[in-house]
Amino acid sequence: MKHTIFKTFCLAAVVFFCAASVCAADPLPSWNDGAAKQSIVSFVTKVTQPDSPDFVPVPERIAVFDNDGTLWAEQPMYFQAFFTFDRVKALAPQHPEWKDKEPFASVLKGDIKSALAGGEHALLEMVMATHAGMTTVEFEQIVTDWIATATHPKTGKRYTEMVYQPMLELLEYLRENGFKTFIVSGGGIEFMRPWAERVYGIPPEQVIGSSIKTKFELFDGKPELVRLPEINFIDDKEGKPVAINQHIGRRPIAAFGNSDGDLQMLQYTVAGSGASFCLYVHHTDAEREWAYDRQSHIGRLDKGLDEAGAKGWTVVDMKNDWKIIYPFEKK
Amino acid sequence: MKHTIFKTFCLAAVVFFCAASVCAADPLPSWNDGAAKQSIVSFVTKVTQPDSPDFVPVPERIAVFDNDGTLWAEQPMYFQAFFTFDRVKALAPQHPEWKDKEPFASVLKGDIKSALAGGEHALLEMVMATHAGMTTVEFEQIVTDWIATATHPKTGKRYTEMVYQPMLELLEYLRENGFKTFIVSGGGIEFMRPWAERVYGIPPEQVIGSSIKTKFELFDGKPELVRLPEINFIDDKEGKPVAINQHIGRRPIAAFGNSDGDLQMLQYTVAGSGASFCLYVHHTDAEREWAYDRQSHIGRLDKGLDEAGAKGWTVVDMKNDWKIIYPFEKK
Repeated sequence: MKHTIFKTFCLAAVVFFCAASVCAADPLPSWNDGAAKQSIVSFVTKVTQPDSPDFVPVPERIAVFDNDGTLWAEQPMYFQAFFTFDRVKALAPQHPEWKDKEPFASVLKGDIKSALAGGEHALLEMVMATHAGMTTVEFEQIVTDWIATATHPKTGKRYTEMVYQPMLELLEYLRENGFKTFIVSGGGIEFMRPWAERVYGIPPEQVIGSSIKTKFELFDGKPELVRLPEINFIDDKEGKPVAINQHIGRRPIAAFGNSDGDLQMLQYTVAGSGASFCLYVHHTDAEREWAYDRQSHIGRLDKGLDEAGAKGWTVVDMKNDWKIIYPFEKK
Repeated sequence: MKHTIFKTFCLAAVVFFCAASVCAADPLPSWNDGAAKQSIVSFVTKVTQPDSPDFVPVPERIAVFDNDGTLWAEQPMYFQAFFTFDRVKALAPQHPEWKDKEPFASVLKGDIKSALAGGEHALLEMVMATHAGMTTVEFEQIVTDWIATATHPKTGKRYTEMVYQPMLELLEYLRENGFKTFIVSGGGIEFMRPWAERVYGIPPEQVIGSSIKTKFELFDGKPELVRLPEINFIDDKEGKPVAINQHIGRRPIAAFGNSDGDLQMLQYTVAGSGASFCLYVHHTDAEREWAYDRQSHIGRLDKGLDEAGAKGWTVVDMKNDWKIIYPFEKK
């Protein structure tokens, strides 16, 4: 019996390594050949070859990814905002005061533009406020139900179908090369965790995000964590390196973002003592996705674009560097 | 070339699985045969056998361990307290006000008993205060230097030699069976991370603890995280399940502690929907280690001992269940 299990293990190992070996032929099939793709492959090669002067041991191969606009789309507004507005509508009967309180009032009137006028911080506060008052288990179920059914107003696709195929390949390529992949997002940590493992292959313990406080309570002797309407941490800009240190405890060697909100994370990554890699996804494809950068209210990329140019970071031109954007475009 | 690498991989896989197979003969050699050891093996067997009704998929095999008194000793006081007192002495010239401020004043007079009179929370505050004012990189170096040289007043051993050999075997046994092992300690997260990987095989991203706040700053364009003299989180009692949810994002299926400070973590673990395992290390060996429980100021085990009895949790009798305590006792 033990011998059979052992043989099965070895067979599984063979299949696994063969599969990895075949993939290595073109690990990034949805990337056009060009400087961006080449820079990724060069970096991975130099940090993984044992005889390379830039070799990095496996435990130190930490890669961090922003989510909104880096792993999935973020237009015409953050997908969590759609979720939040749906939650505002669902919870409105329990919150009569929202009728006269912005930005809730605008949401209930269907005036999304006014609701978003308060900017990202106001949005995050509204996100946190509408996500409290239940246990963590209940909230996970609410997110799971919503993400399985809600669809994007422009594409008609589920939000988890609007992830970037080239980035899925990049995540897998890095993991096959011994990297541990983390999400470090301004989005809600418990909004991402219920589906990040299925969609990105990133387990909950490698998802870092903004959060509200929770409280341990016993209900009839059964322990639960209750979500409180109080912001715990905003994982954006200067907050990203702070959260990386808190959750991971070592400096990443590779960082991927798309906006000025990711700049400090990239700066922190590149300041390490060994080889490092920074990449910005630049939204240049108005036809297949959206085109926006310096003037955008969502995912503004201005200072970051300048710094990427000055420091020689990789900037992905989505229109020219990516063969397809979404997995559903695959033939 | 590629084929050679492939063969090497397969060979490594064979060696790995063979080693695991041999270990399975007695995965816990420093544990005496008895109810405690049997309960561990029974649990691991039932959650890892694919045809078991209690089977748990690998990604959900989360095991959480307290540190002080569970993985290493904690008498006559927390080892981080020794570090803290050494830091108080080293930093005293920069803090003339400490001469008249408790508990610092007592430390500087060498009166440890008075310094500790304020209890655990006062100690933690002093810990945090003496650990601030430098970058995270500088602090890591301070801890690394101290842990390499400081010795315990009773045994004369380095603190990292005073880890429990049976628990090291347990950590490895769980990992060989697909568990991810985490530390969830009231101790400082950045005090444990510099040595936890080497000593316990637990990487920094799986170490959770109490923390002070940090701030992202640029010094001549170089980003650093500066440690602030402000408590961020106390990872004790009700805080442990909160931190587990924040860092791991899923409920553990196995939890290991030694004091009432771990009780909520064990309660939270056992409240999951599937099979779960809780274990208390009971300090019963006054000769080889220390004997203490209900009346101790450090690592008090009172309510937890009652609940363990009522709920049938495993309680390790260190004197009778463990063949040796520390690795240096190995023949």
